[in-house]
Amino acid sequence: MTIDLRSDTITQPTPAMREAMFSAQLGDDVLGDDPTVNALEAKAAALFGMEGALFCASGTMTNQLAIRTHTRPGDDVICDYLSHVYQYEGGGISVNALASVSLAHGERGKLTPDLIREYIYSPSDPHKALSRLVVLENTVNKGGGCYYTVPEIAAIRHVCDEHGLLLHLDGARLFNALVETGEPTEAYGQLFDSISICLSKGLGCPVGSLLLGKADMIRQARRYRKLMGGGWRQAGFLAAAGIYALDHHVDRLKIDHARARKIGAILEQLPEVEEILPIDTNIVIFRLPANLLATDYVAQLEVKGIRGVTFGKHLVRFVTHLDLTDEMISEMEKRMVVSVSH
Amino acid sequence: MTIDLRSDTITQPTPAMREAMFSAQLGDDVLGDDPTVNALEAKAAALFGMEGALFCASGTMTNQLAIRTHTRPGDDVICDYLSHVYQYEGGGISVNALASVSLAHGERGKLTPDLIREYIYSPSDPHKALSRLVVLENTVNKGGGCYYTVPEIAAIRHVCDEHGLLLHLDGARLFNALVETGEPTEAYGQLFDSISICLSKGLGCPVGSLLLGKADMIRQARRYRKLMGGGWRQAGFLAAAGIYALDHHVDRLKIDHARARKIGAILEQLPEVEEILPIDTNIVIFRLPANLLATDYVAQLEVKGIRGVTFGKHLVRFVTHLDLTDEMISEMEKRMVVSVSH
Amino acid sequence: MTIDLRSDTITQPTPAMREAMFSAQLGDDVLGDDPTVNALEAKAAALFGMEGALFCASGTMTNQLAIRTHTRPGDDVICDYLSHVYQYEGGGISVNALASVSLAHGERGKLTPDLIREYIYSPSDPHKALSRLVVLENTVNKGGGCYYTVPEIAAIRHVCDEHGLLLHLDGARLFNALVETGEPTEAYGQLFDSISICLSKGLGCPVGSLLLGKADMIRQARRYRKLMGGGWRQAGFLAAAGIYALDHHVDRLKIDHARARKIGAILEQLPEVEEILPIDTNIVIFRLPANLLATDYVAQLEVKGIRGVTFGKHLVRFVTHLDLTDEMISEMEKRMVVSVSH
Amino acid sequence: MTIDLRSDTITQPTPAMREAMFSAQLGDDVLGDDPTVNALEAKAAALFGMEGALFCASGTMTNQLAIRTHTRPGDDVICDYLSHVYQYEGGGISVNALASVSLAHGERGKLTPDLIREYIYSPSDPHKALSRLVVLENTVNKGGGCYYTVPEIAAIRHVCDEHGLLLHLDGARLFNALVETGEPTEAYGQLFDSISICLSKGLGCPVGSLLLGKADMIRQARRYRKLMGGGWRQAGFLAAAGIYALDHHVDRLKIDHARARKIGAILEQLPEVEEILPIDTNIVIFRLPANLLATDYVAQLEVKGIRGVTFGKHLVRFVTHLDLTDEMISEMEKRMVVSVSH
Repeated sequence: MTIDLRSDTITQPTPAMREAMFSAQLGDDVLGDDPTVNALEAKAAALFGMEGALFCASGTMTNQLAIRTHTRPGDDVICDYLSHVYQYEGGGISVNALASVSLAHGERGKLTPDLIREYIYSPSDPHKALSRLVVLENTVNKGGGCYYTVPEIAAIRHVCDEHGLLLHLDGARLFNALVETGEPTEAYGQLFDSISICLSKGLGCPVGSLLLGKADMIRQARRYRKLMGGGWRQAGFLAAAGIYALDHHVDRLKIDHARARKIGAILEQLPEVEEILPIDTNIVIFRLPANLLATDYVAQLEVKGIRGVTFGKHLVRFVTHLDLTDEMISEMEKRMVVSVSH
Repeated sequence: MTIDLRSDTITQPTPAMREAMFSAQLGDDVLGDDPTVNALEAKAAALFGMEGALFCASGTMTNQLAIRTHTRPGDDVICDYLSHVYQYEGGGISVNALASVSLAHGERGKLTPDLIREYIYSPSDPHKALSRLVVLENTVNKGGGCYYTVPEIAAIRHVCDEHGLLLHLDGARLFNALVETGEPTEAYGQLFDSISICLSKGLGCPVGSLLLGKADMIRQARRYRKLMGGGWRQAGFLAAAGIYALDHHVDRLKIDHARARKIGAILEQLPEVEEILPIDTNIVIFRLPANLLATDYVAQLEVKGIRGVTFGKHLVRFVTHLDLTDEMISEMEKRMVVSVSH
Repeated sequence: MTIDLRSDTITQPTPAMREAMFSAQLGDDVLGDDPTVNALEAKAAALFGMEGALFCASGTMTNQLAIRTHTRPGDDVICDYLSHVYQYEGGGISVNALASVSLAHGERGKLTPDLIREYIYSPSDPHKALSRLVVLENTVNKGGGCYYTVPEIAAIRHVCDEHGLLLHLDGARLFNALVETGEPTEAYGQLFDSISICLSKGLGCPVGSLLLGKADMIRQARRYRKLMGGGWRQAGFLAAAGIYALDHHVDRLKIDHARARKIGAILEQLPEVEEILPIDTNIVIFRLPANLLATDYVAQLEVKGIRGVTFGKHLVRFVTHLDLTDEMISEMEKRMVVSVSH
Repeated sequence: MTIDLRSDTITQPTPAMREAMFSAQLGDDVLGDDPTVNALEAKAAALFGMEGALFCASGTMTNQLAIRTHTRPGDDVICDYLSHVYQYEGGGISVNALASVSLAHGERGKLTPDLIREYIYSPSDPHKALSRLVVLENTVNKGGGCYYTVPEIAAIRHVCDEHGLLLHLDGARLFNALVETGEPTEAYGQLFDSISICLSKGLGCPVGSLLLGKADMIRQARRYRKLMGGGWRQAGFLAAAGIYALDHHVDRLKIDHARARKIGAILEQLPEVEEILPIDTNIVIFRLPANLLATDYVAQLEVKGIRGVTFGKHLVRFVTHLDLTDEMISEMEKRMVVSVSH
């Protein structure tokens, strides 16, 4: 038994999700003919009270579409140094949008109104890129799955409004935040100019991400999706999984969070674990001592059939997800507490 | 019964293809873990004798990846005015590769050595973009499905070698050419620096295209795919359809070609059809008289349950494909010969 | 005595222009402090009745600033195949603006309303770049110095307005047109969204070009100029030459035109000259027979102390300018009629 | 008498420099014909022992040319957060090179081998932009004019070589460093892949900057300069000033440094000055108390005829330069010590 905690992206569709995929009605989505894609987009837009949605192949595609649609070359994007759009999208902000970045250093990757204000430049100064867009990530992957609350976001929206800035949410794991806060999706639809939601992380779909926004913005994003090569044909198979996941896999994220806390309790017993970031959702990040490299530790775990990823020189990340079982967690405890630390 | 001749992209997977899809082994392709994706890439590379392959969401993605990998900003791409990469990829050559175009006007969209030579500029002239890449399309969609032979391509390769130019093939419908010429896939692998092949056109897959090339080039293309948002997770579903199609749907393209010729014979009976381009593969393009707009004519056909697309002010395109039946062709004849022309 | 007809860009400032340059008041233009630059910009804007102007290092810079300011990545620029912005700006439309081109083939490089209409695409079709900008060149360099009249332009403006397109003028040699038509500069200011004017061609300045447009557009262009490296410090030297040229070198362009016609009369005597394009302003393009390469012919002329440039395989271009004298033309006649053709 | 300490860019050419400009031989530099431009480029290349040089309109242009020539879209540039290429070039790294930035936070803007190593990513990870180029600035403007020594740079070069990275120097004020360290220019030519040098800062020219590098790199940069609009015609006027400055204005930079230290001594007397950064060359940065905004303080100074610039919320920068006199410094002391602080 391998206990694979590398990411919540590795899950395989459940039998019921496969059933939904297998019976989906299909069409050519490039021609606008796929009824299941259309239904998924309509469902997601309605859920957040936004005008339109676009179903894409990845969260990187939805984030990058948002950034390039909201900006022009020479604009500046304010985000946290830890944010996925800066750290993990291959330099896409520069390549896709020709936009610069202003990198705030928030606590666990969370921006605040004050942090944002420091990076807003005078539009009349040609030495500076033009401040245009703020990007939040919720939950923050690199911050260990911490999340914003709606009032925190409302304060940031206020700063954006004062300075004519747009606000995008990288909501790859937004539902993980929502099941903790109990806040309604509509509140998010009101606060952001655009939101991207991943279906292939905690929600357990094989492929896909949704971009939500105003009708005009989605129209422009659809154009850019085409030239990024993101126009696909009978995508209804994948959309059907998305519909199923929105109906059946949101509430159960609490189980992932409980298991993450259990993993935290296991890690606390290990002498080699120096620090565990607070476990707010389904991500567990812990620090090893200065004489133990994360790459070495991860390799040791691999031998024991436990898989995680390095997240810095001495940091390791575990993520809980749909394919995990309580039995695996127990087994993990046995293997780690006994074999690694002793 | 609707006779849908808009494109060969509209097909639905057959029961056998679906069976292959739903029994596929899956993994996270972003992490390199999807065995079915890996198998499809290896199979396609071997088929053409090329070093590597990359499975992507669309033919636009594979073409654009090839162009941006082969060029640098300020380079020039020589292609025919009719080519898909110029006409139908949303301006991607400029946006993705920051490359200029030199547009030759070949016969039915086919380049020749002489045409190409006219557009090769002196590298020492800073007024001009730097000639770097030639793109061929085979078959040529806008040329009515005409095709190149290997000797024709070898002559073009020779010009490229003389001037240090790279050569890419947009092979969206390459197998349609190959079943006509009987030429081996390996000959193509030897002549081109890269080839893109569509699985979701004549081959009948729901989604997907393959990029073939040298190992280094594919590595770079994989990087660019990531930042274009083309990294997907459990894509093995779709890859399984691709494997099935390469095994079972290539030879049958001859049936599509025969049906295209049958449709040509029907069109010949119609007084409103002024000219039919030679029917070489599965595409039929015909010209209406100057007083009949293609948009109007296509709308009239729609009413009769026959669907085609406009391909110019007075041009209409029909495409044959896997979901067509002989019965549909007979029915089409009845509806068109009787109801439209009389 | 060398008779240098390569271009009107080769002129040296006259003593009076030098006097103006070296008595100019200077300041740091990046800080907005150069009074002479400010005076030149104000003078040019007023001359055309436009809101603002920007003094730049070259005509390529002013054209490219206009194109990138008017467009977004993925937009389409309609221009003639012969136009300078496509032929001679290093592929800048793609590199600077990430815009595609639609290349009409007008007579001698001049667009017409009908030609433009053919290249306007439906904004709802994501396969196509988004039609956004039309660029005219006046006079047309590659067309042999032919020019538009205001009514011709007004008809093109009308098409632009119908389809929400912007209209830019590459007026590198606009004053050559104006001294022929007698039309007022203000008419141009009313018809175009932006105009670029070269000071270092017929007007005889050492360096510089002006971009004219609405205040907002010029503000944005100033930002882009900065990141293109076009912000310069004590540019007042060069601006002083521009002010002098606008005051003293416009009307005298008629002399250049008369001399161009004289050169035409000389060429008519030469057996090797097969065709001379109509000589409308200061540019003379002539065609050699199929067995005489322009590169060879230009090399032969060089030996006789006459310099021109190749303008195609069998085409040669001569340009008249401020540094030419009647004596040179007589000398040219002697050398060409006697030594080349006999 | 205004004491203008805003920047060393504001200087006016001296009579002797004007004389050199006025008597310069000119030609069309786009055609390679300007003898004075060619002489300046050859002189600068030889001075640093590098293969080629390119004379451009600004330091932003030379830096941006270097960055775009060394990188491809999707590459990553490592520089200090304070560096001019990131802070003051309008977001050009993204717009011109489509490159990402990794922003180290060195002491006073100086990178070290260890800092650089932290930002070098694995080339096999497609989530990350590809580490390609390190940019140093010497002296560091935002760091208060501090400088690197050759051994410090050699250690950085070593890291670059280990990882196949290129190394560019933004040497806008390089000569300010060199007159302090006494190090030879050739040492710089050996350590860097490219160097940009500003002529219009401490050296006192009206306009211009030089890019130095390998012959191939300069050739490519010349191409890119053209499409950035940086090709200029009779630039020999400005080049003549550059030649004069290299001959006569380098050694005298020590005077600027001595005056900067004198200004430091004045500032030390002022109660409102909380901290003065060490004064290493011609830049003086000082901090005001938390209740005094730099914008307010600069406005107060302006009223006394003393001009500086804000350099942060509570930071002010003064720069010494060629147009300053000892009398001005004395006068400055009088006005500041008496009227501001009391």
